[in-house]
Amino acid sequence: MNSIDYWNDLEELRRRKPLIHHLMNFVAMNDAANITLALGASPIMAHAAEEVEELVSIAGALYINIGTLDREWIESMLMAGRAANKNGVPVLLDPVGAGASRLRTETARRILAEVEISIVKGNGGEIMALAGRSGLTKGVDSLGEAEMDVVDLVAREFGATTVATGPVDHVSNLKQRAEVMNGTPMLQLVTGSGCMLGSVMSSFLATSRDPFKAAIEGLVAFEVAAETAVEGSDGPASFKVRLIDEVYKLNKDSFARAKVRIL
Amino acid sequence: MNSIDYWNDLEELRRRKPLIHHLMNFVAMNDAANITLALGASPIMAHAAEEVEELVSIAGALYINIGTLDREWIESMLMAGRAANKNGVPVLLDPVGAGASRLRTETARRILAEVEISIVKGNGGEIMALAGRSGLTKGVDSLGEAEMDVVDLVAREFGATTVATGPVDHVSNLKQRAEVMNGTPMLQLVTGSGCMLGSVMSSFLATSRDPFKAAIEGLVAFEVAAETAVEGSDGPASFKVRLIDEVYKLNKDSFARAKVRIL
Amino acid sequence: MNSIDYWNDLEELRRRKPLIHHLMNFVAMNDAANITLALGASPIMAHAAEEVEELVSIAGALYINIGTLDREWIESMLMAGRAANKNGVPVLLDPVGAGASRLRTETARRILAEVEISIVKGNGGEIMALAGRSGLTKGVDSLGEAEMDVVDLVAREFGATTVATGPVDHVSNLKQRAEVMNGTPMLQLVTGSGCMLGSVMSSFLATSRDPFKAAIEGLVAFEVAAETAVEGSDGPASFKVRLIDEVYKLNKDSFARAKVRIL
Repeated sequence: MNSIDYWNDLEELRRRKPLIHHLMNFVAMNDAANITLALGASPIMAHAAEEVEELVSIAGALYINIGTLDREWIESMLMAGRAANKNGVPVLLDPVGAGASRLRTETARRILAEVEISIVKGNGGEIMALAGRSGLTKGVDSLGEAEMDVVDLVAREFGATTVATGPVDHVSNLKQRAEVMNGTPMLQLVTGSGCMLGSVMSSFLATSRDPFKAAIEGLVAFEVAAETAVEGSDGPASFKVRLIDEVYKLNKDSFARAKVRIL
Repeated sequence: MNSIDYWNDLEELRRRKPLIHHLMNFVAMNDAANITLALGASPIMAHAAEEVEELVSIAGALYINIGTLDREWIESMLMAGRAANKNGVPVLLDPVGAGASRLRTETARRILAEVEISIVKGNGGEIMALAGRSGLTKGVDSLGEAEMDVVDLVAREFGATTVATGPVDHVSNLKQRAEVMNGTPMLQLVTGSGCMLGSVMSSFLATSRDPFKAAIEGLVAFEVAAETAVEGSDGPASFKVRLIDEVYKLNKDSFARAKVRIL
Repeated sequence: MNSIDYWNDLEELRRRKPLIHHLMNFVAMNDAANITLALGASPIMAHAAEEVEELVSIAGALYINIGTLDREWIESMLMAGRAANKNGVPVLLDPVGAGASRLRTETARRILAEVEISIVKGNGGEIMALAGRSGLTKGVDSLGEAEMDVVDLVAREFGATTVATGPVDHVSNLKQRAEVMNGTPMLQLVTGSGCMLGSVMSSFLATSRDPFKAAIEGLVAFEVAAETAVEGSDGPASFKVRLIDEVYKLNKDSFARAKVRIL
């Protein structure tokens, strides 16, 4: 695993243009769809109970994000997740706001219990909440970084490759562990930046089907683009525009910036 | 029809500032509202059963877009459509994702059956799906261009001016046919670009009340703005910003770029 | 009150980073969250009946915006509002589209009747509709400016600090009145600009807990940023990007532009 061929895998992604079925929150839908297109995959947003199973069955990956959940959406998420499992479509879960309300913590845990999740990715506070450690979130923002032992705990309980983002991102599937040190603090000033990262990661997941590798590839692709984007940005809004443009412009040289430590 | 006075009609639109009632998907709501304002019309997004009839009755046009539909929204779309017919308000339908799921194909056909639609506008795959030819969509993206005979088929079955977008856009109301050759491939990398086009077209429809002319005017205005916007863009996100700015800046000279063939 | 220390209060806001619970319309959710982050506060969007009470109880302010309302959302708004009152969390209401439909006018009035509102902020037409004067709205756009006597009327009936935006913004809590003369007409060409202003105002409200002062601070911070943003903008979309960037860059000198008259 110490020789991920990022560029080869991105070229493969762009060749295949996998369909990424999103059950995405209202806040980040537009940005998530746009970054998926910019990367080279094909997004669809669909939540109706009457169509999620059909659409999942033709998707390359399913991305469930609980950022603005309610009862009906939760049912659709579970239905889509089960259909994905049945069809062998990998699923990424972003437990947005786990730890901030019981509904979010419980919904995230319920989805992890009832659906086989390939990757669960959250900020430090959310992953800690999934591990049963509370008090480290402020709404949907994280107040702390998750250490690898907490990431391991979640990976063990739910059998999913687990990613805790932060200044250093931690990735574990218990057999392998990695730290990614790319990115910029400006990402915290853009709403839904984590949601966009989930779209990028889901696109790699649809391509390589190796959750541990896809998690690292998604982190690196998104965060090296962010590093380039922040140069010449005038604030968080121009940064977001540049971030999507830089994802579009990712090329072989971009990945020389990767700062990954496989443990 | 070989002498559309684009500039005169845009000036008239800006003078009247028609209210465009949108039943728009969640993904494109913000961009659709912003491009409507940039063009010179006045958007409103409203979906509650308790208010759609009242709001439609004061609108210049109703724009129904099924991009993120569910049972309740479908009921509101039908209710709004019937109210528009009753009040003589023209309706544009964008059958987003027709062909991708039964729900979308059937909903689009049901709206076309129960509501008198002035313009139905979709990408090639969606229009082909309405014509009963499947397999040419990938989620909400099109995999093929619709030929004029397919556009005619849909126009005949539903009695609506039909528009199939693509590298060449096809427009037909059976009595008249047109091809529009403006635009840029970058539009395919922006989510909801077709939805934004629908807002622009609906605004012209509210102004001129001639669906065939409004369809061409909407295509030309949107696509010449896109051609200017792509110059100097750094990727799809800066392109989208520039696209809305260029729609705002449309002037008499802009329409010299129009590449329209009336057949 | 003729010596508001804008900069001190903004520094305090950035130090505390209050959580602003939004029940926001779909159109403006992304921009509202981003401007809240850019200012220095922390947004959360949450509408599920199962979590609004819990989230309100940890928020610094609750911001209710009825821009895309329906039956379920209205129930959540009332539930969140009552929970805010119980927990001493101040509430800002934006009655988007009051006057455009009975549902919106009645919902705004119902929330004002059942929830103790610290600030009600709308455009001229909306505030006039709350005062029982109709015919001055076009969808969600205002066709007229509210005079101070109308603002007073609303302030008296509902016991809330009342803000009517326009070329000149009027603020009244009956004991004190102010006019703010900052801003740019470009704001009317950006959908949800009023919604973003509500986020900024709610963030100041969470910080100072003085509704009259927070209303003025929000208006000034937002509108001086807009004045700087419009310089060098190429149209409404680049203006919006610059607006959020300028809110991020607000500093001590920015407030020299404040044009406030305390009456």
